[in-house]
Amino acid sequence: MTHSRLALLGFGNVGRAFARLLIRKEVELRDKYGITFTVTGIATGRHGIAVDHEGINLKTALELAENGQTLAALSRLPIRDSLDFIHSVSADVLFENSPVNHHTGEPAATHLRLALERGMHAITANKGPVVHAYHQLTDLARKMERKFYFESTVMDGAPIFSLFRSALPGAQLKSLRGILNSTTNLIISRMEAGETFEQAVKYAQAIGIAETDPSADVEGWDAAIKVAALVTVLMDIPLKPQEVERQGIRCITPAYIAEARAQGKRWKLVCTARREGNTVSARVAPEMVAPDSPMFSVEGTSSIVEFETDTLTSLSIVEGNPGPETTAYGLLADFINAVR
Amino acid sequence: MTHSRLALLGFGNVGRAFARLLIRKEVELRDKYGITFTVTGIATGRHGIAVDHEGINLKTALELAENGQTLAALSRLPIRDSLDFIHSVSADVLFENSPVNHHTGEPAATHLRLALERGMHAITANKGPVVHAYHQLTDLARKMERKFYFESTVMDGAPIFSLFRSALPGAQLKSLRGILNSTTNLIISRMEAGETFEQAVKYAQAIGIAETDPSADVEGWDAAIKVAALVTVLMDIPLKPQEVERQGIRCITPAYIAEARAQGKRWKLVCTARREGNTVSARVAPEMVAPDSPMFSVEGTSSIVEFETDTLTSLSIVEGNPGPETTAYGLLADFINAVR
Repeated sequence: MTHSRLALLGFGNVGRAFARLLIRKEVELRDKYGITFTVTGIATGRHGIAVDHEGINLKTALELAENGQTLAALSRLPIRDSLDFIHSVSADVLFENSPVNHHTGEPAATHLRLALERGMHAITANKGPVVHAYHQLTDLARKMERKFYFESTVMDGAPIFSLFRSALPGAQLKSLRGILNSTTNLIISRMEAGETFEQAVKYAQAIGIAETDPSADVEGWDAAIKVAALVTVLMDIPLKPQEVERQGIRCITPAYIAEARAQGKRWKLVCTARREGNTVSARVAPEMVAPDSPMFSVEGTSSIVEFETDTLTSLSIVEGNPGPETTAYGLLADFINAVR
Repeated sequence: MTHSRLALLGFGNVGRAFARLLIRKEVELRDKYGITFTVTGIATGRHGIAVDHEGINLKTALELAENGQTLAALSRLPIRDSLDFIHSVSADVLFENSPVNHHTGEPAATHLRLALERGMHAITANKGPVVHAYHQLTDLARKMERKFYFESTVMDGAPIFSLFRSALPGAQLKSLRGILNSTTNLIISRMEAGETFEQAVKYAQAIGIAETDPSADVEGWDAAIKVAALVTVLMDIPLKPQEVERQGIRCITPAYIAEARAQGKRWKLVCTARREGNTVSARVAPEMVAPDSPMFSVEGTSSIVEFETDTLTSLSIVEGNPGPETTAYGLLADFINAVR
């Protein structure tokens, strides 16, 4: 049996879905994997921070957070902020789910670095640190004999990084192609159903997919960051989002949509990256996709990535209907793989 | 560094493709995984058997086999048959690629059992023993502290079993749905392009996809065996091909094809399995598939399987354009995962 003390930094939709998944899987983890756990710390953005080395009742914490009450009442120690939290918590694994910062990867990268330095496994659903600090955090994790895992950063918990790590040994990634931003895919799907761009954006905002300022999605930044993360990790070539040739979907008008339909095709915001020796060319741009492509059927918030390796001509992973529960599963899979 | 002595039983298209892949990957295996190897035995169906504990030159063996010459000249010992081969060869891993027997899984199951008993890892591309002897071979492998791996049996080397083994921990498979028989998918694709059933079968035979007697494919037996293998391993519920409700594609006429096209759909031979408590209902039957399904774009010899787990609503794996090289890669991946 392996016992792990868990620290949850970030207790929004994903953090709370992960807490619920931990409760649901507690018996299975113990019986099937010999893994038991205690949650020893929870840091929220707006509802306080709790640290208790004897364990925090997760159900109580969820109830407090969902009722908008502070978690500080559950704490043995007064905790000032997230850095103080990581310094104070007695934990073996940190789950970092703070809001993403596309430009610097901070403060997530600092949280993860600090956790690794304190001897914790560092697991995150935040793509910022993968793009901005992958090599540094991976080297630190190796030195500390801990794991830095981040399955949930690109495809909401569908296995991509673990696929290459463990199921595709001896395969060299030559190129990838996919649909990785759900907001733009949903907007285009809604426009195909007759909505204007503005109506489709409003809908995506109403269901909590798009941000108040949707430009990071609409202009292809989120997709570019995901391409950069995939290339950096899977091709082992550091690539910054700024180095991805990028065109958003603002150019897609109802007339474009109609033209694609007349050809039996659909517009998709397509991500591509191709290795060329020791460099890579990467791009995010709208493309017309025909029904003979597996991308054609990828609807709404679903996503796909097609890999070409030196051993498999074409291997695609398609994820349908993701949600916070899916992202939470990616964190759970990383946890099991880190400690088993 | 780990050194492995390899025995190759079966040296047809897949066995030879695997030998070529071993040659191509030799340096990468050593430098990246610390794995070195010697091939100490090759047993062919019609071109003799070679055993040499000091190692057989793979390039020479390939040349002999491809020129229709016997490999016996490379042997230190006279070997009578495949059982004598497994008893005589000094090896750490057996790669079993003998022709499949759908009804009994023999002689492959016996080959694999014998190899495990002699302390070898047992790796196969042959689905017969997975369906007929999975639990027996898995228990024996556990007892001997060896691996019984078979990634290439269902989707030509695309990662399915290793996906669940290592990339999807803590996920319980609830249902699956897919296109797993390439011959029937190719036949239907050719019929959509205007060929008759007979013409399409002849084409599939001409390119070496369909057997002289295509009934195992056409009547859905091959698909049923693959469903049985997936259910047996991934749901841990023993299922025989005979227990899969099965309808082949002989009912698909040009009129059916035209009717589907008029609805914007395509016929596919669809495999389904759904867990119901501790039992499973499984089926192979033609279905009309709409463009909103990822199965719609699966053309010719490509294949797909869509998984529903208790943690991911929909995760599909699509493999495009497989060949003997793809199957060979599944064997290589199993080899690396068995010994690393």
